[in-house]
Amino acid sequence: MKIKFASRMKTVPRSFIREILKVTTNPEIISFAGGLPNLKMIPIKELENACDSVLEQDGTRAMQYSTSEGYYRLRKWIADRYMKKHSLLVTPDDILITSGSQQALDLVSKVLLDKGTQVTIEKPGYLGAIQAMSVFEPRLSAVPVTETGIDIQALEKNFKTKKPKLFYAVPNFQNPSGITYDMETRKATAALCKKYNVIFVEDDPYGELRFSGTDLPIINKFLNKTGILFGSFSKIVAPGLRLGWVCAPKTIMKNLITVKQAADLHTNFFSQRIVYEYLTKNNLDTHIEKLKAVYGKHAKAMLACIEKYFPSEVKFTRPQGGMFIWVTLPAKIKAMALLKPALKEKVAFVPGDPFYVHTKNVNTLRLNYSNAEPDMIEEGIKRLGNAVKKLISK
Amino acid sequence: MKIKFASRMKTVPRSFIREILKVTTNPEIISFAGGLPNLKMIPIKELENACDSVLEQDGTRAMQYSTSEGYYRLRKWIADRYMKKHSLLVTPDDILITSGSQQALDLVSKVLLDKGTQVTIEKPGYLGAIQAMSVFEPRLSAVPVTETGIDIQALEKNFKTKKPKLFYAVPNFQNPSGITYDMETRKATAALCKKYNVIFVEDDPYGELRFSGTDLPIINKFLNKTGILFGSFSKIVAPGLRLGWVCAPKTIMKNLITVKQAADLHTNFFSQRIVYEYLTKNNLDTHIEKLKAVYGKHAKAMLACIEKYFPSEVKFTRPQGGMFIWVTLPAKIKAMALLKPALKEKVAFVPGDPFYVHTKNVNTLRLNYSNAEPDMIEEGIKRLGNAVKKLISK
Repeated sequence: MKIKFASRMKTVPRSFIREILKVTTNPEIISFAGGLPNLKMIPIKELENACDSVLEQDGTRAMQYSTSEGYYRLRKWIADRYMKKHSLLVTPDDILITSGSQQALDLVSKVLLDKGTQVTIEKPGYLGAIQAMSVFEPRLSAVPVTETGIDIQALEKNFKTKKPKLFYAVPNFQNPSGITYDMETRKATAALCKKYNVIFVEDDPYGELRFSGTDLPIINKFLNKTGILFGSFSKIVAPGLRLGWVCAPKTIMKNLITVKQAADLHTNFFSQRIVYEYLTKNNLDTHIEKLKAVYGKHAKAMLACIEKYFPSEVKFTRPQGGMFIWVTLPAKIKAMALLKPALKEKVAFVPGDPFYVHTKNVNTLRLNYSNAEPDMIEEGIKRLGNAVKKLISK
Repeated sequence: MKIKFASRMKTVPRSFIREILKVTTNPEIISFAGGLPNLKMIPIKELENACDSVLEQDGTRAMQYSTSEGYYRLRKWIADRYMKKHSLLVTPDDILITSGSQQALDLVSKVLLDKGTQVTIEKPGYLGAIQAMSVFEPRLSAVPVTETGIDIQALEKNFKTKKPKLFYAVPNFQNPSGITYDMETRKATAALCKKYNVIFVEDDPYGELRFSGTDLPIINKFLNKTGILFGSFSKIVAPGLRLGWVCAPKTIMKNLITVKQAADLHTNFFSQRIVYEYLTKNNLDTHIEKLKAVYGKHAKAMLACIEKYFPSEVKFTRPQGGMFIWVTLPAKIKAMALLKPALKEKVAFVPGDPFYVHTKNVNTLRLNYSNAEPDMIEEGIKRLGNAVKKLISK
C-alpha cells in the first residue's frame, strides 16, 4: 500500500541529536553531544523516599486517571515559586502541567500556528522548538543572538518586515549557544514585543542553573501577563519523569487545555505526585546549589581545555549557567565535516546545522559539559582539538 | 492583546467528559460518566514492588532521558504478546510507546491528516478520537454501528463515495456503545479496507477484557501488516502511568517517531520501567481474569437494574466485555435534557452528543459500570430511571 503522508512530514526535521545519541551509546566514545543532566546529580534517594511516601498516602489513587490541567498542588507550588523568585503574580490556574516542556511547544504551536503563520526564533535556535513548530508548517525566520542576547536592532527589523505572531526565545544560557540576555536586552525585547503585538514565548529550562554572574528577571516580568512562559523539572530534578509546564494568559490557557486533552488526556499523575512530594519534603534550593557548583566546575574545566587544546582561531562562548558551550570554527571548517573524524577519535558533539532554519554547512557546533566528568572533559576536548587541528592543516 | 488563534481551534471540541468529571467530584453524586477503571482493581502492591525493584536495579538511570521509541524490553513484551494472543508477527521495531493511546491518536493524525483529509469513524464514535483528529481539520464522516459491529453495507458506500484515507474503529466493546464486531464483520471490514485502499486504524484498549462470549481475532490479523493498531496499559494495569502504544508498518513508524520526538521527546521512562518490571514479575493473565470477573459482575448488575428501573421503551446494548453500556431513550427524550434532572437526582452519565460529528440533540447516552460498586449501581440506576420516567411523563 502506497501511503501519502500529511504535507507537514516534508518539513518536520528528524531530530539530529536523537540520531547522534544512538551512535554515542558506544561506551568508548566521550560524548559532548547530548543535553543530559549529570546522572550523579539526580536526587535518587530523595525521589525514592517521595515514591514510597506517595504510594503509602495515595495507594491506587496515585495510579488513576487525573485532570488535564495537572495536579493542583504542584501547579500551586510552581505559581508560588514564580512569586518567590521573580515577584511574578501567577495563580495555579495559569499553569498547565505538560510532558516535559517539549510538549508545551507542541501545545502552544497547535493553539497559535496555522500553515504559513510567521514565527521568529533565535539564530542559532533550540532545535526541539524548530522541530515542534515545523509540524504546523509556519514560516520561521531567525534573528541572530550576540554575546548580550538577541540582536535588538535585527529583532525590530524582523518584527517590522515579517510581522510575526510570536517570538520564541531561550533567554537564559540558551540551548545551543549558552548565551544569556543582559538586562538591557531583556527590557528591549519586552518593549519590542509590546510595540509590535508579538506574543513572547519564553522557554526557561536552565534559568535556575546560574553558576556565575547575578540572576536577572525573566522577560515576562516586563510583559504584564501577555506572554507565555515554559518551565521544566528535567534539569533541576529529573528528566525521565517528563514534567514541564506552561504558564499562559487565561484566553490562551483555555485553548491549551483543550489541545492537552486531545494530545494525551493528562500528564503522568504518579510522577506529578512524586515530584510534588519531593519538593515539599526537601529543599530544592539546596539541591540546585549543588547542581550549580558541579556544572560550574565542569564548564570551567571545559573552557580551560578548549583554551589549551583548540587552535587559537577557534572562538567560543563563556556560559554563566546551563549546560552548553557554542564553538565557532574557522570559516573554512564545516562542523559536519568535523563530525566523522571526531567520531573516529572517539569524541562526539552536535554540529550547528540543526539549530538553523535556512542555513546549512555552518562552522559552529555545540558542546555539552553537564554529563561528562572533568577528566573525561580533558580527554575529550584533547581528542576534539586534534581533530580540528588536522582538519585545519589539510 | 487580542489573540487570533489557529483556525483548528474553531473545530476542536473541548472534551465534554472531562467537563462532566469536574462536576462529579461531588462525592454525593453516583457517577456512571467516567471511563475509569475500578480503583480497587489496580494491582497496587505489585506495582509498589515493581517500583522498589526498578529503583534498586537502575537507580538514577530510571530517571534519565531515554529513547523516543520507548523502552526496548517493554516493546518486545508487547510484540511477544501479539504473537502469543493473536499469532500476529510483530517485532519491537513495529512498536512505539506513547503517553496513553490518546497520544497514538495525536501522532497518527499528525502523520496522515492534512486539512480536509477524508476520515471515516464509527457512529457513535470514541470522542477522544474525534477530538484528537479534529486538531488536524480532517473531514470526518461516520458510519453507524449495529449490534454486530460496523454496518458493512454503509461502510462500503462510505468508502466508495468519500474515499477516506483512513477508517478508525474500536472493534472490541466499543467506547461508547459497548458493541463488538462479530467474526464476519471483522473479515468484511478488512476486505473493504484492502479493496478501497483505506488505512485501518484499530484501537483496542478493551480487547483483553472480555467477560462473556469467545475472543475474536483482531482485524489487523486479516490485513497483512498494512493497518495501524493501538493498545494501552490503562485498562489492564493502571491509567495514571499514561502508557499506551502504537503498532504500525515501517514507513508509517518512521514518521511516527519523528512526530513523537517533536511532541514530547519520549514517554515517561520511570513508568515504562515500572510496568515492564510488573509484567515480568507477575502473571498479567491472572490479574486480567480478576478484572473480567469484577467487570462482568458489574455489567450484569447494571443490566439487571436497567431492566428493573428503566421504562420498557428504553433500549440498551449488552456488552460482552469492556466498560460501557449504551442506552437509547424514546425518540422524544433528548439525553442532554436528561442530564440536569439526573444531576439533581445525584447521578451522572455522558449524553451521546459528543460521540457524533454531525448530529446534535440525540436520544442516546453512555453508562460506565467499571467504576461503581454493585450497590451503588443499583442506587444510581434507580435514580436515573426516576429521572427518565419523570421526563417521559412530562
